Amino acid sequence: MKHLLAASDLDRPQTLGILDLAEQMHDIQGREVKKIPALRGRTIVNLFFEDSTRTRTSFEIAGKWMSADTINVSAKGSSVSKGESMKDTLLTLDSMGVDCFVIRHAGSGTVQQAADWVRASIVNAGDGAHEHPTQALLDSYSMRQHWRTLDGGPVNDFEGRTVAITGDLLHSRVVRSNVSLLTTLGAKVLLCAPPTLMPTGAATWPVELVDSFDEALARADIAMMLRVQRERMSSGFFPSEREYIDGWGLTASRLRALKPGVGIMHPGPMNRGLEISSEAADSVGSLVLNQVSAGVAVRMSVLYHLLGGQQDNSTQEGATA
Amino acid sequence: MKHLLAASDLDRPQTLGILDLAEQMHDIQGREVKKIPALRGRTIVNLFFEDSTRTRTSFEIAGKWMSADTINVSAKGSSVSKGESMKDTLLTLDSMGVDCFVIRHAGSGTVQQAADWVRASIVNAGDGAHEHPTQALLDSYSMRQHWRTLDGGPVNDFEGRTVAITGDLLHSRVVRSNVSLLTTLGAKVLLCAPPTLMPTGAATWPVELVDSFDEALARADIAMMLRVQRERMSSGFFPSEREYIDGWGLTASRLRALKPGVGIMHPGPMNRGLEISSEAADSVGSLVLNQVSAGVAVRMSVLYHLLGGQQDNSTQEGATA
Amino acid sequence: MKHLLAASDLDRPQTLGILDLAEQMHDIQGREVKKIPALRGRTIVNLFFEDSTRTRTSFEIAGKWMSADTINVSAKGSSVSKGESMKDTLLTLDSMGVDCFVIRHAGSGTVQQAADWVRASIVNAGDGAHEHPTQALLDSYSMRQHWRTLDGGPVNDFEGRTVAITGDLLHSRVVRSNVSLLTTLGAKVLLCAPPTLMPTGAATWPVELVDSFDEALARADIAMMLRVQRERMSSGFFPSEREYIDGWGLTASRLRALKPGVGIMHPGPMNRGLEISSEAADSVGSLVLNQVSAGVAVRMSVLYHLLGGQQDNSTQEGATA
Repeated sequence: MKHLLAASDLDRPQTLGILDLAEQMHDIQGREVKKIPALRGRTIVNLFFEDSTRTRTSFEIAGKWMSADTINVSAKGSSVSKGESMKDTLLTLDSMGVDCFVIRHAGSGTVQQAADWVRASIVNAGDGAHEHPTQALLDSYSMRQHWRTLDGGPVNDFEGRTVAITGDLLHSRVVRSNVSLLTTLGAKVLLCAPPTLMPTGAATWPVELVDSFDEALARADIAMMLRVQRERMSSGFFPSEREYIDGWGLTASRLRALKPGVGIMHPGPMNRGLEISSEAADSVGSLVLNQVSAGVAVRMSVLYHLLGGQQDNSTQEGATA
Repeated sequence: MKHLLAASDLDRPQTLGILDLAEQMHDIQGREVKKIPALRGRTIVNLFFEDSTRTRTSFEIAGKWMSADTINVSAKGSSVSKGESMKDTLLTLDSMGVDCFVIRHAGSGTVQQAADWVRASIVNAGDGAHEHPTQALLDSYSMRQHWRTLDGGPVNDFEGRTVAITGDLLHSRVVRSNVSLLTTLGAKVLLCAPPTLMPTGAATWPVELVDSFDEALARADIAMMLRVQRERMSSGFFPSEREYIDGWGLTASRLRALKPGVGIMHPGPMNRGLEISSEAADSVGSLVLNQVSAGVAVRMSVLYHLLGGQQDNSTQEGATA
Repeated sequence: MKHLLAASDLDRPQTLGILDLAEQMHDIQGREVKKIPALRGRTIVNLFFEDSTRTRTSFEIAGKWMSADTINVSAKGSSVSKGESMKDTLLTLDSMGVDCFVIRHAGSGTVQQAADWVRASIVNAGDGAHEHPTQALLDSYSMRQHWRTLDGGPVNDFEGRTVAITGDLLHSRVVRSNVSLLTTLGAKVLLCAPPTLMPTGAATWPVELVDSFDEALARADIAMMLRVQRERMSSGFFPSEREYIDGWGLTASRLRALKPGVGIMHPGPMNRGLEISSEAADSVGSLVLNQVSAGVAVRMSVLYHLLGGQQDNSTQEGATA
């Protein structure tokens, strides 16, 4: 695997390969000495055109624990602000000898484009409202752990499971990546959102659209709540906070109505009191912090799949040509 | 020791334990190869809600020289700006597998609160006008080195010594931490400040308030000058710079009047020409750069006390639960 | 060598020594595992008073590949903004035990001054319109590689060669460093610029001023195009973009007129369509990305020359005095 650009690029064996290696990486998090030499001498640049402390930090920890050299480049204060094109910025960093770019960008599809330009591997760390594949992988990882703890079951954890994804689906890259990956793994996906926050193409996705949040919850094994991204909204997306909470918020009373064993997920950062109540976020069924923890393990696995082991990297062209 | 939240939490044996190990760490600063494996595989996050280059850099160097993985997180550009609570930010980073947070925050007491939330160790790197314990430790370290050089004395260096702390005590976290630590170590502390810059509770502290700066200097073995924090002042704190200098500035003429062997200290950054003259800052008695140098050694010692050696860290909960 | 402050400080053997070691370092860039222990336990601070992602990243990679501890300090959010002088900032960081400062500053000559203050080594990473010596070194490195590939020639690559430097010479530190270094190495330098963008003293430099860009190109073995730094210009420097392109732009038609083997260089970031056309920037004769790649190798070589091998660093004074 050269790049990880989209969850939709991953077939089932690839996905399971990443999740299985992530389990080994997860063991490292429990150790006192969290360090393996797997990526010693590889250079990873976290190239963030949008800020994201949690995602950047998660990748930085993943790289450092595998002994890679990690370098943070924020687009603020970069040559981009001197009018250089994104392509030239990437080619420049690429020519330095970088092995992998972890890219966050506001534009949907920009990361795919970047992969055509550079010699290094690329991981999409979120491009606009398009994809965020490592988020979907860590979500699936968390679900699998949850179901194993519940059932002790080893075989296919996703077959026959129902995941309800609810909230601001319009502005979410998480929903697109999760729909792809969960479908690949065999789960059924329900989508639930206010009509103004449902993506126009969603009817053609391999999902079931459910109007009533309460119905979705009644059928779900996992209640995945997505962040209301007010910073990306102009007015008119929803009439009032009160109405949003009544219709699509995982309130304390909805929490009490959940059947036992339903896992509650949220990619963070949470708007407590809006899409999720503190009672739900902090409940025994909440997998929110498990998701964060899984994030480091999954990213270690992804980086190892891209950069570890033998490569026909041979000599860097362009440098001495 | 799990956390270092306040100088007032440290008893005398703990304080001396930190200072003694710092002496060994200080030797490393003089070496060509400054690297020991003491904290290899431990992850330290410098979580700064307020900027402080010198403190952050000092902790970063301390961690790196002990082979820890160090990660900088500035609250600007963090999820905090997306409305996430400080608690959720901390729990999120904690769940990634961080071993220690070094926290700087504008709110007094916030760091203490953070310690109730997370699994990791916490070092207070300055919380509002409350505490800055590593500053007090490095100050005591510098005094001890100074007196040993002067007297060759091994035994208790602080008994019978007088430290005069002068300046903007109202906005200072340094004064609170130093009063605690110096008292614990057996020194006498004099406080001197314009009435508008004297903390209201100071009369109840184990110190002597001295009106005249010249009297304080005449009695002092150490003249510790604190920064006038004009950025935290509304108008009315002092009538004029001229008056401040006349009353509480360590001017060239006051420098000449000092008895031999008095050490001059300042935690930096200095307002040269206001609370301290360049003559004093650059004089032979100045310990200002010794304080900076001691800072790295003391922080290495603190981090080692919190993270080094055996821990019952066992497996990380929450991740696989 | 203690510091690298200016290309004009380097004599011919020193320059060739840096370039020769850079060739060995360049081999590392082609490897899968890019890591040598050469500077293990040395601490390098990238102290940037002006932003420059490409230069900072290049130095950071160079340091990390040689196993140094690298720390980034941006002047924004530093004590400088609390009114501390640059001298106190430097002395403070120096006292922590830093081995080398890589400094970028807007003021011409400030880096030279810094060298008088600190114990650590200093590398000038660009000071105002004065010098940028590692840029000149990587440019010469790229030319030498280019000529070896063309001619297979081992001996003196620069004797009898002509380098035409064209563009905004007034605001450029690159031109000053390149004129020095190329002259030291034996090349002939032609300078070509609009009259308003030609430095006043240029007539006294060891160069030939050429009015016609087409004549300069006809005589050149290397066409080095410099960035139009509009951000440093008030109005009146050139009448129009059209006029600039017509007079001094390396357009597609000028590209076609070049004799075979002419290398095209640009230190980046490029204003495509202004001083250089995309046809020229992306042509087979373009050495632009080779320059970037050479930058890491040359900076490794420079850092090794300053910090590697034996030093009489003995014990750090000031710390325990």
